[in-house]
Amino acid sequence: MSEQKNHVIDITKHTGITTKPLPGSDKSYIVGSRDDIRVPFRKINLTDTPNKNPELVGEPNAPVYVYDTSGIYTDPQAEINVEKGLPAIRQPWIATRDDTEELAEYSSEFTREQEAKLLDIPLFEHNRRPRRAKPGLNVSQMHYARQGIITPEMEYIAIRENIGRTEADTSGNLPEGFDSHITPEFVRKEVAEGRAIIPANINHPEAEPMIIGRNFLVKINANIGNSATTSSIEEEVEKMVWGIRWGGDTVMDLSTGKNIHQTREWIIRNSPVPIGTVPLYQALEKVNGIAEDLSWEVFRDTLIEQAEQGVDYFTIHAGVRLAHIPLTVERTTGIVSRGGSIMAAWCLAHHQESFLYTHFEEICDIMKAYDVSFSLGDGLRPGSQADANDAAQFAELITLGELTKIAWKHDVQVMIEGPGHVGMHKIKENMDMQLEHCHEAPFYTLGPLVTDIAPGYDHITSGIGAAMIGWYGTAMLCYVTPKEHLGLPNKDDVKTGIITYKIAAHAADLAKGHPGADIRDNAISKARFEFRWEDQFNLGLDPDTARQFHDETLPKPAAKVAHFCSMCGPKFCSMRISHDVKEAFAEKSQEFKDGGSKIYHSV
Amino acid sequence: MSEQKNHVIDITKHTGITTKPLPGSDKSYIVGSRDDIRVPFRKINLTDTPNKNPELVGEPNAPVYVYDTSGIYTDPQAEINVEKGLPAIRQPWIATRDDTEELAEYSSEFTREQEAKLLDIPLFEHNRRPRRAKPGLNVSQMHYARQGIITPEMEYIAIRENIGRTEADTSGNLPEGFDSHITPEFVRKEVAEGRAIIPANINHPEAEPMIIGRNFLVKINANIGNSATTSSIEEEVEKMVWGIRWGGDTVMDLSTGKNIHQTREWIIRNSPVPIGTVPLYQALEKVNGIAEDLSWEVFRDTLIEQAEQGVDYFTIHAGVRLAHIPLTVERTTGIVSRGGSIMAAWCLAHHQESFLYTHFEEICDIMKAYDVSFSLGDGLRPGSQADANDAAQFAELITLGELTKIAWKHDVQVMIEGPGHVGMHKIKENMDMQLEHCHEAPFYTLGPLVTDIAPGYDHITSGIGAAMIGWYGTAMLCYVTPKEHLGLPNKDDVKTGIITYKIAAHAADLAKGHPGADIRDNAISKARFEFRWEDQFNLGLDPDTARQFHDETLPKPAAKVAHFCSMCGPKFCSMRISHDVKEAFAEKSQEFKDGGSKIYHSV
Repeated sequence: MSEQKNHVIDITKHTGITTKPLPGSDKSYIVGSRDDIRVPFRKINLTDTPNKNPELVGEPNAPVYVYDTSGIYTDPQAEINVEKGLPAIRQPWIATRDDTEELAEYSSEFTREQEAKLLDIPLFEHNRRPRRAKPGLNVSQMHYARQGIITPEMEYIAIRENIGRTEADTSGNLPEGFDSHITPEFVRKEVAEGRAIIPANINHPEAEPMIIGRNFLVKINANIGNSATTSSIEEEVEKMVWGIRWGGDTVMDLSTGKNIHQTREWIIRNSPVPIGTVPLYQALEKVNGIAEDLSWEVFRDTLIEQAEQGVDYFTIHAGVRLAHIPLTVERTTGIVSRGGSIMAAWCLAHHQESFLYTHFEEICDIMKAYDVSFSLGDGLRPGSQADANDAAQFAELITLGELTKIAWKHDVQVMIEGPGHVGMHKIKENMDMQLEHCHEAPFYTLGPLVTDIAPGYDHITSGIGAAMIGWYGTAMLCYVTPKEHLGLPNKDDVKTGIITYKIAAHAADLAKGHPGADIRDNAISKARFEFRWEDQFNLGLDPDTARQFHDETLPKPAAKVAHFCSMCGPKFCSMRISHDVKEAFAEKSQEFKDGGSKIYHSV
Repeated sequence: MSEQKNHVIDITKHTGITTKPLPGSDKSYIVGSRDDIRVPFRKINLTDTPNKNPELVGEPNAPVYVYDTSGIYTDPQAEINVEKGLPAIRQPWIATRDDTEELAEYSSEFTREQEAKLLDIPLFEHNRRPRRAKPGLNVSQMHYARQGIITPEMEYIAIRENIGRTEADTSGNLPEGFDSHITPEFVRKEVAEGRAIIPANINHPEAEPMIIGRNFLVKINANIGNSATTSSIEEEVEKMVWGIRWGGDTVMDLSTGKNIHQTREWIIRNSPVPIGTVPLYQALEKVNGIAEDLSWEVFRDTLIEQAEQGVDYFTIHAGVRLAHIPLTVERTTGIVSRGGSIMAAWCLAHHQESFLYTHFEEICDIMKAYDVSFSLGDGLRPGSQADANDAAQFAELITLGELTKIAWKHDVQVMIEGPGHVGMHKIKENMDMQLEHCHEAPFYTLGPLVTDIAPGYDHITSGIGAAMIGWYGTAMLCYVTPKEHLGLPNKDDVKTGIITYKIAAHAADLAKGHPGADIRDNAISKARFEFRWEDQFNLGLDPDTARQFHDETLPKPAAKVAHFCSMCGPKFCSMRISHDVKEAFAEKSQEFKDGGSKIYHSV
């Protein structure tokens, strides 16, 4: 709102935002019941299956449509200008509902102070005022859903989640309680009943609607954010764009360093995916890092500050109660959640119940005025195998279930955060306990890491647990990068973390039998068998790396149609031999067809 | 045996064999009932837990002993000379049994030809003649076990597998059928009953005995080997040394290019772990890559050639029968096993039953004369999600079960190879079917890959499946590298594949509740909580990478005892705050001790 312009920095020059489409792919949109419901997909174009006679044309392969989180950054038609931010696609929908109002100024004292300050980084220049629900109204998607209203967001999501299902419809092999097609009404019902959430702050109209719930595709979250020791605002925006390019469904900005208000502003204005935060981190910065000095007032102002910026979900560690602390003192690794440890320190210092717990209904009132969703934090998650599934963890989970009921009373959307470090044999108990005690609210887990002994590879230790808990019913998986336990991830680490978690989420979709989940697997396997190397690369989660690995030993263009790779060489390629076998079998079958030979019958 | 010396090449100069011990670790040996049973361990030395008063000494942390596959290459006391090969530690045990004889010359015609030839690579200069069982005798470990004989190999293995169990003994939490300590008698019984194998060719006396069975630690195999397009003999030896450094329990030499006899000789003479091969690959080279020209005679000579070199287990695709081929022709990815596709091509070309199947008892006779173990190949494993758990796969599995019975009739050791590409929901069926149809012979699986869509990351897609199937009971996991489907792995890929599979195997050990498996997890978690960074690195599977990742942002020595890292920075380190919480709690508890306050009671 401030007219003042701080340092003018062209952020695009600093970041080199990645904008090109993925190889072999077009941006494609499906339009819904109104022109402004334009749902994006990545359309992967495939080459023909070559005819054995090279003079004849091959058989065409249908393009494969995949869920696309990358926003307009991969749309060559779109104008990208990070100083302007993304188009506010949801603005007309929000305005039409006529239950919100533009504010003359930000409600947060801190925001107003920031706007007036001369800072050493550029302010994002707004062209919109913040919105809030009209007095006494509730603008949450859950509130609409419970009144039977199907919002444009819900229709958008139905189209988005349906990709590939049309083809898969004939399978007759749908999970229990699963509509053959995700209809707008199915979306509404899942949200109304609390089994799914649509994180969609009215102040983040740039976001492309998405849903988190176990009857939908499994989602992944990528954490970004600077810490006091490293990183800059420019890097963080590019990390967000980079993260969604590879498949991040939501991004959490976990910045703890300086200028976090401004960093967040740039991220939200340029993010087509929901943004989550842990408001406690910024509240702690405001009291100079002294947990004891935190107060409900500082926290409350921070919630409003972030809600008016457009944060879509807040991690709130309201389940860490004073009475839980004794359960943690004998643990091998104590309290490993930052928010959890801060709140425990506060509770002990004041010898009082957590202000997040005692003010929970007031928090709900803020959430519903902007449609911010709860991500109820697992402040007591285990940080080691030794602490997995212990009394502290489950005591908090039960509290989170109680809080879920309170939030739902206010029609506020809720998901529940989960562990952590948990061996494979203890994972299912987590899912079962969560479903039971948290009344089927969506579960959102960090990993879990199935062993503690691989620092440097915790994307893998956790990817194993993530795939399994996703299969068991977790709705969103929070990624872990190779740097976990060791340092702040860089761009490469972010990508590795995301690809690992896309693997876990997709493996879970396959295992759950999601209709259409196997379309991409089947297409890539066919391409592989037909030596369509380019198609194999492009259908993969990371075409660039696949191509680079292949070309390390066989870089020439001719190798892209060769019937072998350097792994086995031409003579030993089983797929090449398989084609010969197939042909020989066809010949022999004909030969013996009328001979009554039984040699081909099953043994 | 040849006196002739070919090109004199100092292989050590070419390869730079990696020999230094792992950081913070000593080589340590436990001596058994006789002086020459010296079982190696890696002893990870830990620093003290610092006292809060820096002037006082800290509390010592006991060193952690871990299973060590790296041989004498990590022993600074040992003399390494790849031209001489490793010491033949099992030679006296084999000699004492007095059931084998030294041969005047190699039995294989091909070997004799090779020895006489001038080649463009160096021959390994032998100082030993090949051995074979005396006529009519059986020298397999299974044969001894079934007679109630506990061999030195079995005692060695009992000591090796027992690491950490002494401490864990008090848990009372042992899996069914599991002795609290692995005794030599327990080893014998498991081998006698076919639930475990000890791959230990009498011509590979350099090998340190190890066991593969589901009541022991889960093992991993690393594949190496050149193909026609790339790699050299020197690289392959170093790949083997590199592979066992990071934890490869066995190594398969899958070379398919030229000079494979010589490459294998160098590898075996320098390998302290069992070596496996697929003899069919070399047999195919001998007939110039034309599957049709294969014959039992060529194959038989190849088996004997490799048995007298010291190969410890042979993958033999005897389960691919002519009658199974029709089951594969409609598959999405046909036959993806090299051996499987070659045998299918042979069967069709001759329209005959596989010579591996028809000559199976003759193969058993060869195996028992050298104690080569069967690894019954899954020639019809699925190469895509679409083909998982199909009729072809299970028809072959049932055949492998029949062949197991035949091998056991000859007291020949057997393990069974398994898939492949299998979604998470179909993995358990594989394990259950294998146990049922193959009579509890150890299962040895490749992955399985839980999705097809991530070329470049198939170490991860398969690591997920490997961890799960290991938990369900698979005894050995065959690694997959990031280059799978794309090209021949390089040294970095080998390491990444191995670390990923060590994670999977260890996660399985934890989930199975193997006594003592969690000792290392608990030690690293304690080190992490106490900010003993060096200990955290050294207790990890890959200390070098962990240190490098940490030092990327905080390279100074002071950071190695700092109570934070760059991920969260000092103010937001949950573990640092946790220590404060613990102290504050201790103070408050004292304060309220006699006040009757209930505030700390569990809610």
